[in-house]
Amino acid sequence: MERRGRGGFLIMPQLFYVPAREFERARRVPDDPARSTALFATLCRINTLYMIARAGSGHIGSSFSSLDIVAWLHLRELSGGDRFFSSKGHDVPGLYAVLIALGRLPFENLHQLRRLGGLPGHPDVGTAGMVTNTGPLGMGISKAKGLVRANRLTGEKGRVFVMTGDGELQEGQIWESLATAALEGMGEITAIVDHNKVQSDTLVTSVSDLGDLERKFTAFGWQVARCDGHDFSALEATLDRFRKVTDRPKVIVADTIKGRGVSFMEHTALLPQDKYYRFHSGAPDDATYARAAAELIATANRQLEEFGQAPLQLEQAPTPQRPDLQGSQRLVPAYSRALVAHAERDPRIVALDADLVLDTGLIPFSERLRGRFIECGIAEQDMVSQAGGLALSGLLPVVHSFACFLSTRANEQIYNNATERRKIVYVGSLAGLLPGGPGHSHQAVRDIAALGAIPGLIMLQPSCEAEVELAVAYCLGESEESCYIRLTSIPCQVPFGLPSGYALEPGRGVTLMEGGDAVLFGYGPVLLSQGYRAAVLLRERQGVAVRVINLPWLNRVDSDWLVGELAGVSAVFTLDDHYLSGGQGEMLTARLAELGINPRLRVRRFGVRSIPACGQNDEVLRAHRLDAESLAADLALALAGGPPD
Amino acid sequence: MERRGRGGFLIMPQLFYVPAREFERARRVPDDPARSTALFATLCRINTLYMIARAGSGHIGSSFSSLDIVAWLHLRELSGGDRFFSSKGHDVPGLYAVLIALGRLPFENLHQLRRLGGLPGHPDVGTAGMVTNTGPLGMGISKAKGLVRANRLTGEKGRVFVMTGDGELQEGQIWESLATAALEGMGEITAIVDHNKVQSDTLVTSVSDLGDLERKFTAFGWQVARCDGHDFSALEATLDRFRKVTDRPKVIVADTIKGRGVSFMEHTALLPQDKYYRFHSGAPDDATYARAAAELIATANRQLEEFGQAPLQLEQAPTPQRPDLQGSQRLVPAYSRALVAHAERDPRIVALDADLVLDTGLIPFSERLRGRFIECGIAEQDMVSQAGGLALSGLLPVVHSFACFLSTRANEQIYNNATERRKIVYVGSLAGLLPGGPGHSHQAVRDIAALGAIPGLIMLQPSCEAEVELAVAYCLGESEESCYIRLTSIPCQVPFGLPSGYALEPGRGVTLMEGGDAVLFGYGPVLLSQGYRAAVLLRERQGVAVRVINLPWLNRVDSDWLVGELAGVSAVFTLDDHYLSGGQGEMLTARLAELGINPRLRVRRFGVRSIPACGQNDEVLRAHRLDAESLAADLALALAGGPPD
Repeated sequence: MERRGRGGFLIMPQLFYVPAREFERARRVPDDPARSTALFATLCRINTLYMIARAGSGHIGSSFSSLDIVAWLHLRELSGGDRFFSSKGHDVPGLYAVLIALGRLPFENLHQLRRLGGLPGHPDVGTAGMVTNTGPLGMGISKAKGLVRANRLTGEKGRVFVMTGDGELQEGQIWESLATAALEGMGEITAIVDHNKVQSDTLVTSVSDLGDLERKFTAFGWQVARCDGHDFSALEATLDRFRKVTDRPKVIVADTIKGRGVSFMEHTALLPQDKYYRFHSGAPDDATYARAAAELIATANRQLEEFGQAPLQLEQAPTPQRPDLQGSQRLVPAYSRALVAHAERDPRIVALDADLVLDTGLIPFSERLRGRFIECGIAEQDMVSQAGGLALSGLLPVVHSFACFLSTRANEQIYNNATERRKIVYVGSLAGLLPGGPGHSHQAVRDIAALGAIPGLIMLQPSCEAEVELAVAYCLGESEESCYIRLTSIPCQVPFGLPSGYALEPGRGVTLMEGGDAVLFGYGPVLLSQGYRAAVLLRERQGVAVRVINLPWLNRVDSDWLVGELAGVSAVFTLDDHYLSGGQGEMLTARLAELGINPRLRVRRFGVRSIPACGQNDEVLRAHRLDAESLAADLALALAGGPPD
Repeated sequence: MERRGRGGFLIMPQLFYVPAREFERARRVPDDPARSTALFATLCRINTLYMIARAGSGHIGSSFSSLDIVAWLHLRELSGGDRFFSSKGHDVPGLYAVLIALGRLPFENLHQLRRLGGLPGHPDVGTAGMVTNTGPLGMGISKAKGLVRANRLTGEKGRVFVMTGDGELQEGQIWESLATAALEGMGEITAIVDHNKVQSDTLVTSVSDLGDLERKFTAFGWQVARCDGHDFSALEATLDRFRKVTDRPKVIVADTIKGRGVSFMEHTALLPQDKYYRFHSGAPDDATYARAAAELIATANRQLEEFGQAPLQLEQAPTPQRPDLQGSQRLVPAYSRALVAHAERDPRIVALDADLVLDTGLIPFSERLRGRFIECGIAEQDMVSQAGGLALSGLLPVVHSFACFLSTRANEQIYNNATERRKIVYVGSLAGLLPGGPGHSHQAVRDIAALGAIPGLIMLQPSCEAEVELAVAYCLGESEESCYIRLTSIPCQVPFGLPSGYALEPGRGVTLMEGGDAVLFGYGPVLLSQGYRAAVLLRERQGVAVRVINLPWLNRVDSDWLVGELAGVSAVFTLDDHYLSGGQGEMLTARLAELGINPRLRVRRFGVRSIPACGQNDEVLRAHRLDAESLAADLALALAGGPPD
């Protein structure tokens, strides 16, 4: 089953994990705190790598940088009512691996990272051992304060250990949370900064240098210590010292290495010419997995050998099939190209990013138009208000982040800009229900509602690469209003094409499939594709002709056009890649009532009805009854007169 | 025209202001920078006091604390492309007074503070001389960075001076904005902290002590200086020194006195037993005005005398009539009582505040249930996430702020809490279009949309004191879901009463006035009262019988109830104290379409259609066509078949 790859290393078509019995064996080695914890951490790294490779996505880099600390805390420090959680949250695979190894999570969960009913991509209190939901950055210390206040009120005992990232310290809420913790002497709190020097994309120093962290925390009244986060003796000594400090909150700035444990994943292996760190999120390919696993296994065997133990006996599981992405539409790269093309013609265009260049498609812009690229760090509020200042000076800022963060973290800042009536373009990627892996903190299905009432902000979501180009041309060019472009990030197989000669007209959509029995309105590649396929199924199976209309305008509809489209049909369906509340469907449906057209019209809205499930994309669509099959069934039911709910 | 008050001091039924010609005279005194600026500042204080007294509201305390600095900058420091603005914004009456004195704003604006078409309660770029819109706290340094980046890109020159409050430094965005300014060496920026030691309600030290401010800013890489903000020589020396520092951003921590210039308004006059500072916002009563004006006038005359000048020749204007509040409903005090009553019975209830105890009705709670009262400072994100931690521990947090800030600044934090599925009650006061004086940053007409799609969050707005009690009982008691209580803060003359035996039932409303021709749905005391009066007018003038229904549920409607209510009527109107987009009307209207009831139904939505105007309450209602007269006309038009727009 083994073969040699070109580089001479092992390529294993299988994934390997450490079974429960091997953790049993590791537990029985002589108790040398540092060495036995190191062994435990290595085994957990093997399983973390396994989980992420199996899931097809996850955060290796910071799971590995924090794992020694997480392991030490769980084996040697936490007791009684003590709690630990990670504020950054994306390092949770490492924590899962530790909890599974300790039997605090069922062992079979190891195979269920980012699967429906399994372990979510970011922590959720629905999972045993998870203290609080994290994923949006910067909330951890505030949450910890709430837990401590509750303990003080109820007389419960226990300390709270909260892990933060270092890039995360760019978030204002971190600093907002420090002062009252110090004023109220919250010695129950120990924050640990996983200071791995690398935020999502690149070195923290090249994004927004943190400066002298010890000095900053000290200035805010916290007790600060700094130590090597991979040196267990240093960790032990620091925690021992901190146990005696009970009159104020404490923070350990732990120097760590992102990707620690696998030589080529360690950020210290970045060469001067490597601009971006490649193991923050996503999964390794098969060859990379094999190299990394082999290295970790070798380390474990060496550690076992030092205890006089035989090599590891691993279990294996097949590498899961990945969906075929051939022929997929990739909207973010299309956006990226269109943005650069426009910016090359329009010197007013300035692009702002919040530490997501890899995800928001800004690398070409940042390289070609360096002077007009502004990296703001993980500081969405600051970014949006800076955009306000730029717009007041006559420039055209284009502001980027994930839709979930941009629309909610900087919500008041976007409104404040809107009241200044200058044009700004906001671009929220990772919009909608999919990808389903990261979990609800990242599944942006509330952004249309959160921004919908902002005056002078026109919102639109393109459904394919071609429409991305049109949307960029409209928003960066023609539009006199500010715009919000909602972008799907996953590659999508799109079953429809736009008619030739299609042009964007505000509030007007385009028919993708003809049909006279009913009309289905949708937008974006994910659900519009499912709706389109559902319409095909209905036609094939029941002979019902549903017209499918792509309406990219999320908060505008042209009444004349709408009236025209509905002539003769007996049912209208809307399909939102968003919560039903505040989505396009609500806007459209309300307009139908106001227009009073076609009194016999049956109207039903489809969309997200509950907090997004975490899982593989197809699992998540099915769980929300938004896959083509479920939609076809529910559309048929609605056509037959089923009640709205 | 003069008479002696009981305290022996002058009561003047008139308000006094310094006319343009007296500023001319003051400009001609010999040029002694400190003394002539002091005279100028005193004259501006007289006019600031006049403006606020005339407007009936405004922020005296921080206008006075910052005025010496603002005067010095405008007379002695700013030149060419230099710009000044205040990040806290509520000190803008002082800035207006300075700009009016310098002829940069029309002199007649002096009489138009917080009036329609006049000077808004917080800065708006629609007013000459206003650099950016502020009012929401913490955005100023970010905006300044945007202005500086734009200058660097376009080659424009000029420095940016941005004033912040000291309480404002509790906002996370301030700290979020500091790092990149330092990293990019933004020597163009000088921040000035108006360190007046008092935030809205009370001493900063007793809310959330700022600690060693110089140390904090230094740790973030800023050049720091500290000086007496009322000592012009010290200001001059500091600014001189700073002019030479061009490689990094600079901050002056200016020690000032809140209310400076009027002995009894100065915060240093607070006695140990005075818990709250009373001159942060609002207007002085006649007697207080008279005492303050007399003191300022005496100071000015003394300063003029030192220059050998005759006493001031003031102009006067009558004290404006204030609306009669006799018999008004006061919802916040009613809320305050109900909260305490419930909390006394339920030990799980914890109240959190963000520096607005005077406005959110929390003083009784904080006094009677001290241990369960948490003052978070101006730190809404931190407050909401702390509430999350408390709820995870089984407590019932009740979270308070102004609706505009709570719903938007902490938007992502509220959603994060919602995903943990623990009950939390949010209370947003100052909700809706009125009061019209503070301006759009404070007029919360977007909160229903911003929070509407949060799963498991039921939103309601009581229409009178009696319904406040019911709402508190429902939200703190019966409800298993989290709740958002939307509270009107202004005293309201409410022309309707609730029927006896009325009880809250989710999604169901109550008829306030019978009528079979049309139904008008509304909520809250302000617009429901206008709608009710409009219905009376329609009945009297045109014999049209509009049924008026109070539907306090903002994001829920019971379909069965709705169908029943609409039997036989030919028109449905909704009335939102909110933008049309995402308000109750949109939710209701969409449901009407889904229910397919009464095909001949005419449906129209009324509400806020544009960025809220600033002005007196009646002016603002009229400007938005939401006063009873305009509504009656527009309802009549709609009944006659006018089109929706």
